[in-house]
Amino acid sequence: MSADEVRLARAYLLRVAEPPAPALFAFVERAGPVVAAARVRAGDVPAAVRDETSARCEHDLAEGDLARADAVGARLVVPEDPEWPGWPLLCLANASGRGLRWATPPLALWVRGSASLDDVLTRSVAVVGARSATSYGEHVATEFGYGLAEQSFTVVSGAAHGIDGAAHRGALAAGGNTIAVMACGVDVPYPASHSALLARIARDGAIVSEYPPSATPAKYRFLVRNRLIAAMGAGTVVVEAGVRSGARNTAASAAALGKVVLAVPGPVESAMSRGCHELLRTGAATLVSTVPEVLEAVGQVGDLAPTTTSPKRPTDGLGDQAIRVHDALSVRTARGPDQIATESGVPLDRVRALLPELELTGLAHHTEEGWRRPRT
Amino acid sequence: MSADEVRLARAYLLRVAEPPAPALFAFVERAGPVVAAARVRAGDVPAAVRDETSARCEHDLAEGDLARADAVGARLVVPEDPEWPGWPLLCLANASGRGLRWATPPLALWVRGSASLDDVLTRSVAVVGARSATSYGEHVATEFGYGLAEQSFTVVSGAAHGIDGAAHRGALAAGGNTIAVMACGVDVPYPASHSALLARIARDGAIVSEYPPSATPAKYRFLVRNRLIAAMGAGTVVVEAGVRSGARNTAASAAALGKVVLAVPGPVESAMSRGCHELLRTGAATLVSTVPEVLEAVGQVGDLAPTTTSPKRPTDGLGDQAIRVHDALSVRTARGPDQIATESGVPLDRVRALLPELELTGLAHHTEEGWRRPRT
Repeated sequence: MSADEVRLARAYLLRVAEPPAPALFAFVERAGPVVAAARVRAGDVPAAVRDETSARCEHDLAEGDLARADAVGARLVVPEDPEWPGWPLLCLANASGRGLRWATPPLALWVRGSASLDDVLTRSVAVVGARSATSYGEHVATEFGYGLAEQSFTVVSGAAHGIDGAAHRGALAAGGNTIAVMACGVDVPYPASHSALLARIARDGAIVSEYPPSATPAKYRFLVRNRLIAAMGAGTVVVEAGVRSGARNTAASAAALGKVVLAVPGPVESAMSRGCHELLRTGAATLVSTVPEVLEAVGQVGDLAPTTTSPKRPTDGLGDQAIRVHDALSVRTARGPDQIATESGVPLDRVRALLPELELTGLAHHTEEGWRRPRT
Repeated sequence: MSADEVRLARAYLLRVAEPPAPALFAFVERAGPVVAAARVRAGDVPAAVRDETSARCEHDLAEGDLARADAVGARLVVPEDPEWPGWPLLCLANASGRGLRWATPPLALWVRGSASLDDVLTRSVAVVGARSATSYGEHVATEFGYGLAEQSFTVVSGAAHGIDGAAHRGALAAGGNTIAVMACGVDVPYPASHSALLARIARDGAIVSEYPPSATPAKYRFLVRNRLIAAMGAGTVVVEAGVRSGARNTAASAAALGKVVLAVPGPVESAMSRGCHELLRTGAATLVSTVPEVLEAVGQVGDLAPTTTSPKRPTDGLGDQAIRVHDALSVRTARGPDQIATESGVPLDRVRALLPELELTGLAHHTEEGWRRPRT
């Protein structure tokens, strides 16, 4: 069977059932897409598949969908294509195999943009968050998007207002790859105020959806879409999230898919950080405050993350007694060893031994009148 | 032997060795304070004790110290006193028993203030943080101090600039108990700009120190003092801390003493939150953003912490198909069941069954023209 037949069959199947459709997915896996499509059309399917497909099985708009996609420079990427991101999406197959029906993999993906899906998802992180983000959240999301893109990581998000948009913009500003996963058709500019942003993402990255061209967004679809965002990143960073938030749903999906979940903290009185703090407090997410920490957590480039080293102090490495002797020295007044012994509580013979040691490292200064601490 | 003898002996012993003095502590435990003091004075002690005491053993200022304390309304509280906070300090004895020499318990405590130590430390939390705190950090510390005091918790801190001072002030503002543990004598107003604050703490709470009256603070003493702050709270809350910070030392001490360590998050770009974020990131601390969360973590009043409940939505509790049917309804346009079935991908017979259910709960509205979603 030809590649065109497969593409037509999967275009039909994508529209005939509302994702996720676990019974249809399993049926396609068994029968293959072309036979599966023909049997769904004919109503010759097991009851569970009929349940998922009966409402729309007579609507065969596959050719129209492919034409409409083509008109906006989009294409249907199917699992049979070399660019199918099989590795990132494997977590969905595994999770649905464990009985998580929501995790059913997509039957195919509409893609608008020139990037090869497989390529751009080799190194990728999802950055998500509240639509009603604060300026703090948008700032952090932009910085993270920029920093990840600079390190050649693809930034996956949902093109929504607030955090999503800021993350995409940051990645674009760094000249990096970014992928917007939609809850509507790849040709639908949603939200409308992001038309220009979406056009830039389509040009420099990719807009991805399992919904056919011109499909409108629906609440339910955002939740279903979130599993794809979670699957497409090596980890998911939640930048800001209210107590009830789609971003927390994405975080929960990511966790269930075995992905790293990360959250950015913020001021405790910010309602938009409450979701992140809850994720951190319950141990559902790991705290990240910088891009190197994100990279360290997703574990692909551990050596990029600088270990937080405290600035060195001259007294580092001194023993207790040496520190006490050093503390007992004055910058202004010279003191004798006996006075230093009394001040510090260190035995006189130890004081006599320690003072020259401190002098060697520049921490004590010997004068005619006695010992001083050098000015720093 | 009289109580006065014991008090004189412990006043002498507190000054003769720089705390923590593990060998002296063990010697006092074995010989008792009066005999131990006499033998230290005479130099008739094991080598390890001599090492800790030889520099100052001839300085017997005990009577003078007690008189000076009395002059400022302070007293020496000894383990033989009923108000000795044996329970909170037990963690120090346990930790030093496990070989942590820094955890050696105090030989006695100078106390300025009328509060009974044992009483006020029954329910207590340490609140600590950076001296160079931000206004955000000081605000949170004040709120936490206030909120903890309101719940009859004693706020233990170190009277330093920044977070410490704010925590004390919050507790005082709530009319609660607060304890300042000093790295100098209880009569030394350090920092000088906190003279008025310290006077209020002495009046309404207590100033506590193991250093004799008029002892001056030294770097080393702050670290040694921190173990007492950590020991005196059921948990330690770090509000703000730089990467290198005394508050992190207190947090580490608290952890080693088996206490709960809590940290307050803040903006990721704030240098003063970096220490807190590091504690959270590495799992060394649990995130807290409210006083009820602190109380829940210290585990004394779990029922005070409200479980974070999401606001109820009318669609809560609906199944997938019902949510999809609800999503497919329009506020503006009435739709027929077949159209809704196509939109939602839910089989027509299920749509016909679900619509009346949604109508019952006010989520769908039946008109002459078809089904709509009611305006909310």
